Amino acid sequence: MIQVHAFATPNSVKVLIALEELEMPYDLRPINVRIGAQKAEAFLALNPNGKVPVLVDDGFVLTESAAILVHLAEKTGKLLPKDGAGRARVFEQLFFHASGLSPAFGNAGFFKRSSPEPQPIAEARFTNEAERLLGLLDAKLASQPFMAGKEFTIADIAHFGWMWRIQFPGLTIDGRPNLSRWYQAVAARPAVQQAIARVEAAVPAT
Amino acid sequence: MIQVHAFATPNSVKVLIALEELEMPYDLRPINVRIGAQKAEAFLALNPNGKVPVLVDDGFVLTESAAILVHLAEKTGKLLPKDGAGRARVFEQLFFHASGLSPAFGNAGFFKRSSPEPQPIAEARFTNEAERLLGLLDAKLASQPFMAGKEFTIADIAHFGWMWRIQFPGLTIDGRPNLSRWYQAVAARPAVQQAIARVEAAVPAT
Repeated sequence: MIQVHAFATPNSVKVLIALEELEMPYDLRPINVRIGAQKAEAFLALNPNGKVPVLVDDGFVLTESAAILVHLAEKTGKLLPKDGAGRARVFEQLFFHASGLSPAFGNAGFFKRSSPEPQPIAEARFTNEAERLLGLLDAKLASQPFMAGKEFTIADIAHFGWMWRIQFPGLTIDGRPNLSRWYQAVAARPAVQQAIARVEAAVPAT
Repeated sequence: MIQVHAFATPNSVKVLIALEELEMPYDLRPINVRIGAQKAEAFLALNPNGKVPVLVDDGFVLTESAAILVHLAEKTGKLLPKDGAGRARVFEQLFFHASGLSPAFGNAGFFKRSSPEPQPIAEARFTNEAERLLGLLDAKLASQPFMAGKEFTIADIAHFGWMWRIQFPGLTIDGRPNLSRWYQAVAARPAVQQAIARVEAAVPAT
Protein backbone atom coordinates (compact mmCIF):
# COMPACT_ATOMS: atom_id res chain seq x y z
CA MET A 1 0.00 0.00 0.00
CA ILE A 2 1.09 3.57 -0.62
CA GLN A 3 2.53 5.30 2.43
CA VAL A 4 2.31 9.05 2.87
CA HIS A 5 4.56 10.76 5.42
CA ALA A 6 2.73 14.01 6.00
CA PHE A 7 1.15 16.45 8.43
CA ALA A 8 -1.50 19.18 8.42
CA THR A 9 0.53 21.44 6.11
CA PRO A 10 -0.24 23.17 2.79
CA ASN A 11 1.99 20.81 0.84
CA SER A 12 0.98 17.64 2.66
CA VAL A 13 -2.75 18.05 2.17
CA LYS A 14 -2.32 18.17 -1.60
CA VAL A 15 -1.11 14.58 -1.69
CA LEU A 16 -3.96 13.34 0.46
CA ILE A 17 -6.49 15.17 -1.72
CA ALA A 18 -5.07 13.55 -4.85
CA LEU A 19 -5.16 10.10 -3.27
CA GLU A 20 -8.75 10.60 -2.12
CA GLU A 21 -9.81 11.94 -5.53
CA LEU A 22 -8.18 8.94 -7.21
CA GLU A 23 -9.68 6.53 -4.66
CA MET A 24 -6.27 5.07 -3.91
CA PRO A 25 -5.91 3.57 -0.43
CA TYR A 26 -2.98 4.85 1.62
CA ASP A 27 -1.35 4.58 4.97
CA LEU A 28 -0.85 8.03 6.56
CA ARG A 29 2.31 8.27 8.66
CA PRO A 30 2.12 11.52 10.65
CA ILE A 31 5.34 13.55 10.85
CA ASN A 32 4.79 16.17 13.52
CA VAL A 33 6.48 19.24 12.08
CA ARG A 34 5.47 21.26 15.15
CA ILE A 35 8.10 19.37 17.14
CA GLY A 36 10.57 19.19 14.24
CA ALA A 37 10.07 15.51 13.39
CA GLN A 38 10.88 16.27 9.75
CA LYS A 39 14.48 17.02 10.82
CA ALA A 40 14.92 13.75 12.76
CA GLU A 41 17.50 11.30 11.46
CA ALA A 42 14.96 8.63 10.54
CA PHE A 43 13.03 11.05 8.38
CA LEU A 44 16.12 12.57 6.76
CA ALA A 45 17.01 9.08 5.55
CA LEU A 46 13.74 9.23 3.60
CA ASN A 47 14.06 12.87 2.50
CA PRO A 48 17.44 14.55 3.04
CA ASN A 49 15.69 17.88 2.40
CA GLY A 50 13.78 17.48 5.68
CA LYS A 51 10.36 18.32 4.30
CA VAL A 52 6.95 16.72 4.18
CA PRO A 53 5.23 15.20 2.27
CA VAL A 54 7.03 12.06 1.14
CA LEU A 55 5.29 9.30 -0.82
CA VAL A 56 6.48 5.71 -0.70
CA ASP A 57 4.89 3.75 -3.53
CA ASP A 58 5.91 0.08 -3.49
CA GLY A 59 9.34 1.04 -2.17
CA PHE A 60 9.80 3.99 -4.53
CA VAL A 61 10.43 7.08 -2.42
CA LEU A 62 9.30 10.38 -3.92
CA THR A 63 9.55 13.90 -2.49
CA GLU A 64 8.19 17.29 -3.60
CA SER A 65 4.42 17.53 -3.37
CA ALA A 66 3.86 18.66 -6.95
CA ALA A 67 6.09 15.88 -8.31
CA ILE A 68 3.95 13.46 -6.29
CA LEU A 69 0.79 14.92 -7.85
CA VAL A 70 2.24 14.43 -11.35
CA HIS A 71 3.30 10.87 -10.49
CA LEU A 72 -0.15 9.91 -9.19
CA ALA A 73 -1.90 11.57 -12.14
CA GLU A 74 0.31 9.86 -14.72
CA LYS A 75 0.02 6.50 -12.94
CA THR A 76 -3.77 6.59 -13.05
CA GLY A 77 -4.34 8.65 -16.21
CA LYS A 78 -6.56 11.06 -14.28
CA LEU A 79 -6.52 14.73 -13.15
CA LEU A 80 -4.04 15.68 -15.91
CA PRO A 81 -5.17 16.11 -19.52
CA LYS A 82 -3.60 13.99 -22.24
CA ASP A 83 -3.43 16.66 -24.97
CA GLY A 84 -0.37 18.89 -25.22
CA ALA A 85 -2.06 22.24 -24.67
CA GLY A 86 -4.16 20.98 -21.77
CA ARG A 87 -1.12 19.46 -20.07
CA ALA A 88 0.91 22.62 -20.60
CA ARG A 89 -1.73 24.70 -18.81
CA VAL A 90 -1.59 22.34 -15.83
CA PHE A 91 2.21 22.44 -15.64
CA GLU A 92 2.14 26.23 -16.04
CA GLN A 93 -0.02 26.47 -12.91
CA LEU A 94 1.99 23.87 -10.99
CA PHE A 95 5.18 25.87 -11.55
CA PHE A 96 3.46 29.22 -10.99
CA HIS A 97 2.39 27.82 -7.65
CA ALA A 98 5.74 26.22 -6.75
CA SER A 99 7.98 29.11 -7.77
CA GLY A 100 5.68 32.06 -7.06
CA LEU A 101 2.70 31.68 -4.80
CA SER A 102 4.07 29.08 -2.40
CA PRO A 103 7.34 30.91 -1.51
CA ALA A 104 5.47 34.23 -1.26
CA PHE A 105 2.90 32.75 1.15
CA GLY A 106 5.50 30.86 3.18
CA ASN A 107 7.84 33.82 3.52
CA ALA A 108 5.05 36.31 4.22
CA GLY A 109 3.98 34.04 7.06
CA PHE A 110 7.52 33.66 8.36
CA PHE A 111 8.25 37.40 8.49
CA LYS A 112 4.86 38.14 10.06
CA ARG A 113 4.98 35.45 12.70
CA SER A 114 8.35 33.82 13.21
CA SER A 115 11.17 36.26 12.50
CA PRO A 116 13.23 36.86 15.66
CA GLU A 117 13.19 40.59 14.87
CA PRO A 118 10.96 42.65 12.56
CA GLN A 119 12.14 42.81 8.96
CA PRO A 120 9.65 45.30 7.51
CA ILE A 121 11.03 45.36 3.98
CA ALA A 122 11.01 41.56 3.80
CA GLU A 123 7.51 41.35 5.27
CA ALA A 124 6.17 43.90 2.78
CA ARG A 125 8.01 42.28 -0.13
CA PHE A 126 6.40 38.87 0.35
CA THR A 127 2.99 40.15 1.44
CA ASN A 128 2.74 42.42 -1.60
CA GLU A 129 3.89 39.65 -3.89
CA ALA A 130 1.33 37.24 -2.43
CA GLU A 131 -1.45 39.81 -2.93
CA ARG A 132 -0.32 40.42 -6.50
CA LEU A 133 -0.40 36.70 -7.26
CA LEU A 134 -3.84 36.30 -5.66
CA GLY A 135 -5.01 39.06 -8.02
CA LEU A 136 -3.63 37.18 -11.02
CA LEU A 137 -5.45 34.00 -10.00
CA ASP A 138 -8.71 35.88 -9.41
CA ALA A 139 -8.43 37.43 -12.88
CA LYS A 140 -7.73 34.04 -14.45
CA LEU A 141 -10.75 32.48 -12.77
CA ALA A 142 -13.02 35.20 -14.21
CA SER A 143 -13.03 33.33 -17.52
CA GLN A 144 -12.61 29.68 -16.54
CA PRO A 145 -13.95 27.53 -13.71
CA PHE A 146 -10.68 25.85 -12.71
CA MET A 147 -7.03 26.86 -12.52
CA ALA A 148 -5.97 25.16 -15.75
CA GLY A 149 -9.23 25.47 -17.69
CA LYS A 150 -12.59 23.72 -17.73
CA GLU A 151 -11.68 20.64 -15.74
CA PHE A 152 -10.62 20.00 -12.16
CA THR A 153 -6.95 18.93 -12.27
CA ILE A 154 -3.90 18.57 -10.08
CA ALA A 155 -3.35 22.33 -10.65
CA ASP A 156 -6.42 22.97 -8.48
CA ILE A 157 -5.14 20.57 -5.86
CA ALA A 158 -1.76 22.35 -5.79
CA HIS A 159 -3.28 25.79 -5.30
CA PHE A 160 -5.80 24.55 -2.76
CA GLY A 161 -3.11 23.60 -0.24
CA TRP A 162 -2.05 27.17 0.48
CA MET A 163 -5.55 28.64 0.08
CA TRP A 164 -6.66 26.28 2.84
CA ARG A 165 -3.90 27.70 5.06
CA ILE A 166 -4.19 31.34 3.93
CA GLN A 167 -4.49 32.55 7.52
CA PHE A 168 -0.81 31.64 8.11
CA PRO A 169 0.49 34.53 5.97
CA GLY A 170 -2.39 36.70 7.23
CA LEU A 171 -4.07 36.98 3.85
CA THR A 172 -7.64 36.44 2.64
CA ILE A 173 -9.56 35.61 -0.49
CA ASP A 174 -12.44 37.85 0.63
CA GLY A 175 -12.99 40.51 -1.99
CA ARG A 176 -11.74 38.22 -4.74
CA PRO A 177 -15.02 36.82 -6.05
CA ASN A 178 -13.70 34.37 -8.62
CA LEU A 179 -11.11 32.90 -6.31
CA SER A 180 -13.73 32.63 -3.57
CA ARG A 181 -16.14 30.81 -5.90
CA TRP A 182 -13.34 28.42 -6.91
CA TYR A 183 -12.36 27.81 -3.28
CA GLN A 184 -15.91 26.97 -2.26
CA ALA A 185 -16.28 24.58 -5.19
CA VAL A 186 -13.04 22.74 -4.38
CA ALA A 187 -13.62 22.70 -0.61
CA ALA A 188 -17.04 21.12 -1.18
CA ARG A 189 -15.64 18.07 -2.96
CA PRO A 190 -16.02 14.96 -0.79
CA ALA A 191 -12.43 13.87 -1.48
CA VAL A 192 -11.11 17.22 -0.30
CA GLN A 193 -13.17 17.06 2.87
CA GLN A 194 -12.00 13.52 3.55
CA ALA A 195 -8.33 14.46 3.01
CA ILE A 196 -8.60 17.41 5.39
CA ALA A 197 -10.32 15.27 8.01
CA ARG A 198 -7.61 12.63 7.82
CA VAL A 199 -4.70 15.05 7.98
CA GLU A 200 -6.26 17.02 10.83
CA ALA A 201 -6.91 13.81 12.77
CA ALA A 202 -3.15 13.16 12.60
CA VAL A 203 -2.41 16.28 14.68
CA PRO A 204 -2.03 15.33 18.36
CA ALA A 205 -4.30 17.18 20.79
CA THR A 206 -2.31 19.72 22.82
CA MET B 1 8.58 29.37 -35.94
CA ILE B 2 8.79 29.28 -32.14
CA GLN B 3 9.24 32.70 -30.56
CA VAL B 4 11.02 33.09 -27.24
CA HIS B 5 10.61 36.33 -25.30
CA ALA B 6 13.61 36.26 -23.02
CA PHE B 7 16.73 37.95 -21.68
CA ALA B 8 20.04 36.99 -20.05
CA THR B 9 18.37 35.68 -16.89
CA PRO B 10 18.54 32.35 -15.02
CA ASN B 11 15.06 31.34 -16.12
CA SER B 12 15.35 32.57 -19.71
CA VAL B 13 18.54 30.72 -20.53
CA LYS B 14 16.91 27.38 -19.66
CA VAL B 15 14.49 27.69 -22.55
CA LEU B 16 17.22 28.58 -25.03
CA ILE B 17 19.32 25.64 -23.85
CA ALA B 18 16.42 23.24 -24.36
CA LEU B 19 15.72 24.61 -27.84
CA GLU B 20 19.40 24.32 -28.79
CA GLU B 21 19.65 20.78 -27.38
CA LEU B 22 16.52 19.78 -29.32
CA GLU B 23 17.78 21.53 -32.46
CA MET B 24 14.54 23.49 -32.77
CA PRO B 25 14.87 26.81 -34.59
CA TYR B 26 13.53 29.84 -32.73
CA ASP B 27 13.19 33.56 -32.96
CA LEU B 28 14.60 35.28 -29.87
CA ARG B 29 12.72 38.44 -28.89
CA PRO B 30 14.79 40.27 -26.27
CA ILE B 31 12.86 41.72 -23.31
CA ASN B 32 15.24 44.04 -21.51
CA VAL B 33 14.45 43.41 -17.86
CA ARG B 34 17.16 45.90 -16.84
CA ILE B 35 14.85 48.70 -18.00
CA GLY B 36 11.66 46.95 -16.84
CA ALA B 37 10.42 45.91 -20.29
CA GLN B 38 8.74 42.86 -18.71
CA LYS B 39 6.32 45.23 -16.95
CA ALA B 40 5.36 47.11 -20.14
CA GLU B 41 1.77 46.84 -21.31
CA ALA B 42 2.63 44.98 -24.50
CA PHE B 43 4.47 42.30 -22.58
CA LEU B 44 1.83 42.01 -19.84
CA ALA B 45 -0.67 41.15 -22.57
CA LEU B 46 1.51 38.10 -23.24
CA ASN B 47 2.24 37.28 -19.59
CA PRO B 48 0.17 39.10 -16.96
CA ASN B 49 2.70 37.91 -14.38
CA GLY B 50 5.32 40.22 -15.93
CA LYS B 51 8.11 37.67 -16.11
CA VAL B 52 10.39 36.22 -18.76
CA PRO B 53 10.63 33.78 -20.44
CA VAL B 54 7.51 33.35 -22.54
CA LEU B 55 7.28 30.81 -25.37
CA VAL B 56 4.94 31.30 -28.31
CA ASP B 57 4.59 28.03 -30.20
CA ASP B 58 2.35 28.38 -33.25
CA GLY B 59 0.20 30.92 -31.40
CA PHE B 60 0.12 28.97 -28.14
CA VAL B 61 1.47 31.24 -25.41
CA LEU B 62 3.18 29.50 -22.50
CA THR B 63 4.80 30.99 -19.39
CA GLU B 64 6.87 29.51 -16.54
CA SER B 65 10.29 28.30 -17.65
CA ALA B 66 9.95 24.79 -16.22
CA ALA B 67 6.52 24.33 -17.82
CA ILE B 68 8.12 25.33 -21.11
CA LEU B 69 10.86 22.72 -20.59
CA VAL B 70 8.23 20.02 -19.98
CA HIS B 71 6.26 21.15 -23.04
CA LEU B 72 9.30 21.02 -25.33
CA ALA B 73 10.43 17.66 -23.92
CA GLU B 74 7.00 16.08 -24.33
CA LYS B 75 6.58 17.53 -27.81
CA THR B 76 9.85 15.99 -29.00
CA GLY B 77 10.03 12.91 -26.79
CA LYS B 78 13.52 13.90 -25.64
CA LEU B 79 15.26 15.04 -22.42
CA LEU B 80 12.54 13.46 -20.23
CA PRO B 81 12.43 9.69 -19.64
CA LYS B 82 9.34 7.72 -20.63
CA ASP B 83 9.26 5.32 -17.65
CA GLY B 84 7.40 6.29 -14.51
CA ALA B 85 10.31 6.23 -12.08
CA GLY B 86 12.63 8.09 -14.43
CA ARG B 87 10.04 10.80 -15.07
CA ALA B 88 9.29 11.14 -11.37
CA ARG B 89 12.98 11.82 -10.63
CA VAL B 90 12.98 14.60 -13.25
CA PHE B 91 9.82 16.22 -11.88
CA GLU B 92 11.17 15.89 -8.34
CA GLN B 93 14.20 17.97 -9.37
CA LEU B 94 12.15 20.46 -11.39
CA PHE B 95 9.98 21.19 -8.36
CA PHE B 96 12.92 21.12 -5.94
CA HIS B 97 14.45 23.79 -8.14
CA ALA B 98 11.29 25.85 -8.61
CA SER B 99 10.10 25.81 -5.01
CA GLY B 100 13.43 25.66 -3.19
CA LEU B 101 16.63 26.62 -4.93
CA SER B 102 15.29 29.30 -7.24
CA PRO B 103 13.48 31.40 -4.58
CA ALA B 104 16.43 30.99 -2.17
CA PHE B 105 18.90 32.22 -4.81
CA GLY B 106 16.65 35.04 -5.99
CA ASN B 107 15.87 36.31 -2.50
CA ALA B 108 19.46 35.94 -1.27
CA GLY B 109 20.50 38.13 -4.20
CA PHE B 110 17.75 40.66 -3.54
CA PHE B 111 18.58 41.13 0.14
CA LYS B 112 22.32 41.31 -0.59
CA ARG B 113 22.09 43.75 -3.46
CA SER B 114 18.76 45.47 -3.88
CA SER B 115 17.02 45.92 -0.55
CA PRO B 116 16.56 49.63 0.22
CA GLU B 117 17.75 48.95 3.78
CA PRO B 118 19.66 46.02 5.28
CA GLN B 119 17.47 43.14 6.41
CA PRO B 120 20.05 40.91 8.08
CA ILE B 121 17.66 38.16 9.19
CA ALA B 122 16.19 37.92 5.72
CA GLU B 123 19.61 37.95 4.07
CA ALA B 124 20.88 35.19 6.35
CA ARG B 125 17.69 33.16 5.96
CA PHE B 126 17.94 32.93 2.18
CA THR B 127 21.73 32.66 2.01
CA ASN B 128 21.77 29.81 4.52
CA GLU B 129 18.93 28.07 2.71
CA ALA B 130 20.72 28.41 -0.63
CA GLU B 131 23.91 26.94 0.88
CA ARG B 132 21.94 24.08 2.40
CA LEU B 133 20.35 23.25 -0.95
CA LEU B 134 23.70 23.43 -2.76
CA GLY B 135 24.94 20.87 -0.24
CA LEU B 136 22.02 18.56 -1.01
CA LEU B 137 22.72 18.75 -4.73
CA ASP B 138 26.44 18.11 -4.20
CA ALA B 139 25.59 15.04 -2.12
CA LYS B 140 23.16 13.77 -4.76
CA LEU B 141 25.75 14.15 -7.51
CA ALA B 142 28.22 12.01 -5.54
CA SER B 143 26.38 8.91 -6.73
CA GLN B 144 24.99 9.91 -10.11
CA PRO B 145 26.29 11.97 -13.04
CA PHE B 146 23.19 14.10 -13.62
CA MET B 147 20.50 15.68 -11.47
CA ALA B 148 17.84 13.07 -12.17
CA GLY B 149 20.08 10.04 -12.68
CA LYS B 150 22.30 8.69 -15.44
CA GLU B 151 21.04 10.82 -18.29
CA PHE B 152 21.11 14.52 -19.10
CA THR B 153 17.51 15.77 -18.82
CA ILE B 154 15.51 18.96 -18.44
CA ALA B 155 16.27 18.72 -14.70
CA ASP B 156 19.89 19.57 -15.50
CA ILE B 157 18.79 22.44 -17.72
CA ALA B 158 16.58 23.82 -14.93
CA HIS B 159 19.37 23.76 -12.34
CA PHE B 160 21.93 25.13 -14.77
CA GLY B 161 20.14 28.47 -15.14
CA TRP B 162 20.81 29.60 -11.57
CA MET B 163 24.24 27.94 -11.34
CA TRP B 164 25.25 30.02 -14.35
CA ARG B 165 24.18 33.16 -12.44
CA ILE B 166 25.42 32.07 -9.00
CA GLN B 167 27.36 35.31 -8.56
CA PHE B 168 24.06 37.23 -8.24
CA PRO B 169 23.30 35.80 -4.77
CA GLY B 170 27.02 35.92 -3.96
CA LEU B 171 27.42 32.16 -3.73
CA THR B 172 29.87 29.69 -5.25
CA ILE B 173 30.13 26.03 -6.18
CA ASP B 174 33.85 26.03 -5.28
CA GLY B 175 34.43 23.44 -2.57
CA ARG B 176 31.53 21.33 -3.84
CA PRO B 177 33.38 18.85 -6.04
CA ASN B 178 30.42 16.91 -7.44
CA LEU B 179 28.44 20.00 -8.28
CA SER B 180 31.53 21.55 -9.88
CA ARG B 181 32.11 18.44 -12.00
CA TRP B 182 28.46 18.51 -13.10
CA TYR B 183 28.61 22.22 -13.91
CA GLN B 184 31.71 21.81 -16.06
CA ALA B 185 30.11 18.92 -17.94
CA VAL B 186 26.91 20.84 -18.66
CA ALA B 187 28.69 24.11 -19.50
CA ALA B 188 30.85 22.24 -22.05
CA ARG B 189 27.87 21.07 -24.10
CA PRO B 190 27.75 22.87 -27.46
CA ALA B 191 24.03 23.57 -27.13
CA VAL B 192 24.57 25.23 -23.77
CA GLN B 193 27.36 27.40 -25.14
CA GLN B 194 25.25 28.39 -28.12
CA ALA B 195 22.28 29.30 -25.91
CA ILE B 196 24.44 31.46 -23.66
CA ALA B 197 26.00 33.19 -26.66
CA ARG B 198 22.59 33.99 -28.13
CA VAL B 199 21.08 35.28 -24.92
CA GLU B 200 24.15 37.39 -24.10
CA ALA B 201 24.15 38.86 -27.60
CA ALA B 202 20.62 40.11 -26.89
CA VAL B 203 21.87 42.37 -24.08
CA PRO B 204 22.46 45.90 -25.42
CA ALA B 205 25.94 47.32 -24.86
CA THR B 206 25.88 49.99 -22.16
